[in-house]
Amino acid sequence: MGVLRVLTQDDPEAVSLHGQIIESHFPNIDTISQCIPDHPDGIPSVDAEADALPYVEELGRELAADVDVVGISCALDPAVDSLDAELDVPVIGAGASVAAAARARGERVGTLGLESGTAPVVRELLGDNLQARAVVEGAETTNYLTTSEGHDAIRASVQRLADAGCDVVAPSCTGLTTSGVLADLGDSLEIPIVDPVLAMAAIGTTAVYPVTAVPE
Amino acid sequence: MGVLRVLTQDDPEAVSLHGQIIESHFPNIDTISQCIPDHPDGIPSVDAEADALPYVEELGRELAADVDVVGISCALDPAVDSLDAELDVPVIGAGASVAAAARARGERVGTLGLESGTAPVVRELLGDNLQARAVVEGAETTNYLTTSEGHDAIRASVQRLADAGCDVVAPSCTGLTTSGVLADLGDSLEIPIVDPVLAMAAIGTTAVYPVTAVPE
Repeated sequence: MGVLRVLTQDDPEAVSLHGQIIESHFPNIDTISQCIPDHPDGIPSVDAEADALPYVEELGRELAADVDVVGISCALDPAVDSLDAELDVPVIGAGASVAAAARARGERVGTLGLESGTAPVVRELLGDNLQARAVVEGAETTNYLTTSEGHDAIRASVQRLADAGCDVVAPSCTGLTTSGVLADLGDSLEIPIVDPVLAMAAIGTTAVYPVTAVPE
Repeated sequence: MGVLRVLTQDDPEAVSLHGQIIESHFPNIDTISQCIPDHPDGIPSVDAEADALPYVEELGRELAADVDVVGISCALDPAVDSLDAELDVPVIGAGASVAAAARARGERVGTLGLESGTAPVVRELLGDNLQARAVVEGAETTNYLTTSEGHDAIRASVQRLADAGCDVVAPSCTGLTTSGVLADLGDSLEIPIVDPVLAMAAIGTTAVYPVTAVPE
């Protein structure tokens, strides 16, 4: 699986973090991670997405040459539809994946995003099943989510979603995976939280054939 | 993962077929498979579902004691909501899972079911994104799907969905996994086909914590 990161980082370990999380959860998936250039704040908003699109498209084409499936690890699903139509391998977005996985588990979905709000692809997929939207206060970019203030703000936001009657949480920013707090939150809450990066990988596993070879 | 089959079979190998397919696709998942009694034709329709519900509930409770997640391997999702609310482990249905996984990959979803039609949970989840519904002609029960006439009928139905403008196929009966033809079809068609049993397993993987342990 090619893991395309939209947050520019110099450290290869940091770039491969989502891929490492995928490999630890799905030991039979090998990942190759790469990030787009010139985006040290990631893609914090729909406005920023337009600028990033050409980079995502170029890197997506590059990655596709070496993998069975490409995952765009951003909940805005930048260039997912166009690349999926263009390339020979399936292209999966974290946004549609987390929304769909949450919808499979509940009917009143709460989304959790940066201050710029819930990704349009997530809103659109959830439709009337979008029960409540929360933002992580103070999170202008994804980088805030890994700070301790960010962690507190995430916890408070998720609790608001539970209080609003949601029966499942769909974090609509993959920086929430990077934050490292979702598993703890999931253990302590009454309602499940879907991890957006793992949702992308899970949907990715369903996109790779052979899917129904009957065991001997 | 506990795999609850709604098709009564005497042969343990046959009962564990969906579990074996899950294990071959997700080598880190161990499965325990069991089937409900007295249903040699499975649950071929919504009417038949009411009769099967108590059996599914009882077996679901039994299975839950030994697993981290229970998958109900039937696209009607019988007793999924009630068991998920009741039990300490997450309970996942093949119906919501295949619909959600298909929705993550396309906007014009085609469903494929037995003559009794598309499972209500699948229709409801897809909403306006349900582009076309096909039935496998002659398939009054799931057992027809493993015959060679059944295979031909499945192929014809899937082609009708592609012709109807669908951009992804969601088979809304897990007997289509048992049929063993989905992978071949997926390879030969322009549009993807989601395997309902693997979709259930994939969604199941997102339901088991810890989901975001950051690798050392």
